[in-house]
Amino acid sequence: MGSDLDSTIRVGLLGCGHVGGALVSLIEERNGEVEQSAGVRFDVTRVAVRNLSKHRDTVVPGGRNHEDVFTTDAESIVNDPDIDLVVELIGGVEPARSLILDSLKSGKPVVTGNKELLANVGAELYAAAAASGVDILFEAAAAGAIPIVRPLRESLLGEDVKRIMGIVNGTTNYILTKMTEEGADYAAALAEAQQRGYAERDPTADVEGYDAGAKAAIMASLAFGVQVVAGDVYHEGIAGVTASDIAFAERFNHVIKLLAVAQRFAPAEDSGDDRFEVGVTVYPAMVPDEHPLASVRDSFNAVFIEGEAAGEMMFYGRGAGGTPTASAVLGDMIDAATNWKRSTFRPVPQGPRAKIRPVDNIETAYYLNMSTVDSSGVLAAVAGAFAANGISIRSMDQQESTGETARLSFLTHTAFEGQMQSTIAAISELEAVEEIHSVLRVVES
Amino acid sequence: MGSDLDSTIRVGLLGCGHVGGALVSLIEERNGEVEQSAGVRFDVTRVAVRNLSKHRDTVVPGGRNHEDVFTTDAESIVNDPDIDLVVELIGGVEPARSLILDSLKSGKPVVTGNKELLANVGAELYAAAAASGVDILFEAAAAGAIPIVRPLRESLLGEDVKRIMGIVNGTTNYILTKMTEEGADYAAALAEAQQRGYAERDPTADVEGYDAGAKAAIMASLAFGVQVVAGDVYHEGIAGVTASDIAFAERFNHVIKLLAVAQRFAPAEDSGDDRFEVGVTVYPAMVPDEHPLASVRDSFNAVFIEGEAAGEMMFYGRGAGGTPTASAVLGDMIDAATNWKRSTFRPVPQGPRAKIRPVDNIETAYYLNMSTVDSSGVLAAVAGAFAANGISIRSMDQQESTGETARLSFLTHTAFEGQMQSTIAAISELEAVEEIHSVLRVVES
Repeated sequence: MGSDLDSTIRVGLLGCGHVGGALVSLIEERNGEVEQSAGVRFDVTRVAVRNLSKHRDTVVPGGRNHEDVFTTDAESIVNDPDIDLVVELIGGVEPARSLILDSLKSGKPVVTGNKELLANVGAELYAAAAASGVDILFEAAAAGAIPIVRPLRESLLGEDVKRIMGIVNGTTNYILTKMTEEGADYAAALAEAQQRGYAERDPTADVEGYDAGAKAAIMASLAFGVQVVAGDVYHEGIAGVTASDIAFAERFNHVIKLLAVAQRFAPAEDSGDDRFEVGVTVYPAMVPDEHPLASVRDSFNAVFIEGEAAGEMMFYGRGAGGTPTASAVLGDMIDAATNWKRSTFRPVPQGPRAKIRPVDNIETAYYLNMSTVDSSGVLAAVAGAFAANGISIRSMDQQESTGETARLSFLTHTAFEGQMQSTIAAISELEAVEEIHSVLRVVES
Repeated sequence: MGSDLDSTIRVGLLGCGHVGGALVSLIEERNGEVEQSAGVRFDVTRVAVRNLSKHRDTVVPGGRNHEDVFTTDAESIVNDPDIDLVVELIGGVEPARSLILDSLKSGKPVVTGNKELLANVGAELYAAAAASGVDILFEAAAAGAIPIVRPLRESLLGEDVKRIMGIVNGTTNYILTKMTEEGADYAAALAEAQQRGYAERDPTADVEGYDAGAKAAIMASLAFGVQVVAGDVYHEGIAGVTASDIAFAERFNHVIKLLAVAQRFAPAEDSGDDRFEVGVTVYPAMVPDEHPLASVRDSFNAVFIEGEAAGEMMFYGRGAGGTPTASAVLGDMIDAATNWKRSTFRPVPQGPRAKIRPVDNIETAYYLNMSTVDSSGVLAAVAGAFAANGISIRSMDQQESTGETARLSFLTHTAFEGQMQSTIAAISELEAVEEIHSVLRVVES
């Protein structure tokens, strides 16, 4: 361990892409201030990359020789006794997991922004950190530059968090904002996002909700004190959202957002099981205009938290991007380094595995949009299908009545997913119904 | 110090008003959960109050005898060796300051929600806590139930925070929301706020901006790493805001909010002083509709932070209220108790006294509203006064031209307060100008 006189923390950086590169620059720029305010300064001593030639032009931290700093051998960094602190920005589960475990075992605190890793094997890593008495910090893994991990880990320790609703994927929020504000259809908005570098060439992880789901699993684990993993999350993506859904939402003073929703439910009665249940779902939803989440535009992110005592809270900011994410990583590095110098750390609370409530048993309001034959009696038949499944209708709208085809839209009161599936099946079987175009969940104001 | 086997933390509570009463209930309700998740439970062993008879009906924590718990002798609580942790909710500087210093000196961690105290003598208390190696935590003192202290103290350690703009007073935001949405005038909206218990009978601390200023001083100290005290803050209240100002703001797609603004400025060139400067100001300002702060309604609060690397962030929630504030206090209690059991603590970073930039040297855009004689040449004369002081006009609006009196409104580009004061003096001297009704600052989008 460095003496108090030696304020330099030797950093091993694993991965030097978009965020890693921004981090190296940010450290160079901020080191003086950081040393003045926190009494530590960072020396990025070694950097592991996949392809050395790709980094020939990367500015070498601290004016060292390129070949002394960059290596493809990440193991040699985590096993280097001269390295004090490891920053993991490789992404993915392996080899990140093994490298972090090795770092922690040798007493090096770890800072990571790897949501996929933590959403899958977070519990293992948190336990390893606690066993070694060092920090594993991950502010950047939950909502990028938005400080949400510390509020959840510390400030809200006394709070009974009921629900977290997050817009935690900038790509999909950018696409949905374009569709809403410019009337673009999904394909055009996605193409623009790709052109601007907001969406990857293969946009699956973003548009299908896997990225948002991983973040929701991490936040749910912290908020509810039980282990939630990526595989527990129910996903629906935004590819099916149409310009007509957005226009309908607008007429009803709603906007469509991809929401990651984590909820805590009281134990089911008569189940003989007194554990509470957790539901974690990602889906496009209609959000009322007056809801704080409705005004989160473009690639901004926000996390809306409902607590029993604290009431409603929202955390808003940049969910991604090299420099914003690097800022969150640097904050963690300072925290980890000062703790390490004081021989202390903050263990991540470790609960049991969560009892997951299946999506079928989660209640929400719905929006349905369908084409029907334009004749009398159709509305009664559709309404009857809702009623037969115990779902009551909040409002209804008919468009494009051409004499042949009518377009019907419904907003319902809350119903269980299971009820809605039965209703959809019943409506689909009606001879007068041509096609159900969209089924979206609705956030109640 | 309690052994690991003994998870009970004996709490001495100083003050049992609105927040203290809610805290006692919240602890009773949440103790089981807290013990399960954090390994500590709280026993509110003793409570100091001013008037014993007022608390005859207060439920006694833990089923003890009333007279064993309640006392008017607060000193006896902080000096009681059986008390592990002190929670201060008395408010004001003395006797809170002395009681907290005594608690810290005897090794008891302290949780406080006392903004007035911290904005005046925070540095003394933080130093005393560090000297004793225990925590002083104060999440509830900056923005009530909104977790903003930990993000500032920890998550944003690596960030170069440029500006903080907060709506941090619920009373004034409620009044301004009523004026905006219902066209109420200031006196009627204040009366309604008083009737609902949102405003005190003497509303000075809220409507004149002192409450918001104290919170801004605390946040500025944390964000900029220098000591800012309540006396450094420049205040203007909302009593002068008129229905006509609000109507004008609306026509220009703005809303009027009471903002607490803390800014960091680079050292003035040629000053021979390399210290950066800090400006902390509270005033009613016009906020563009598309700004995230514009949609913060009623008694909700929000803190908007602009960082060099992290970009824009906003933290939104309940800034006051018994139960929400108690939730923030309980979060701090858990944190302080777990740290204390692990013999660790987190010192509040201590910078030097801030170099304060006087308001005259702070730039902002302005809105002016005035009555003039309705004759040709008046506009040219007024515009000339702006030009003579180097201020350029962004937009102008003329209302109620009666043939005798005209009402003129101006939005300017940014100017220094000093320039604006000279301009106002020059305009006031124009014979054609009857009265300058309002001068408000404008947040640029």
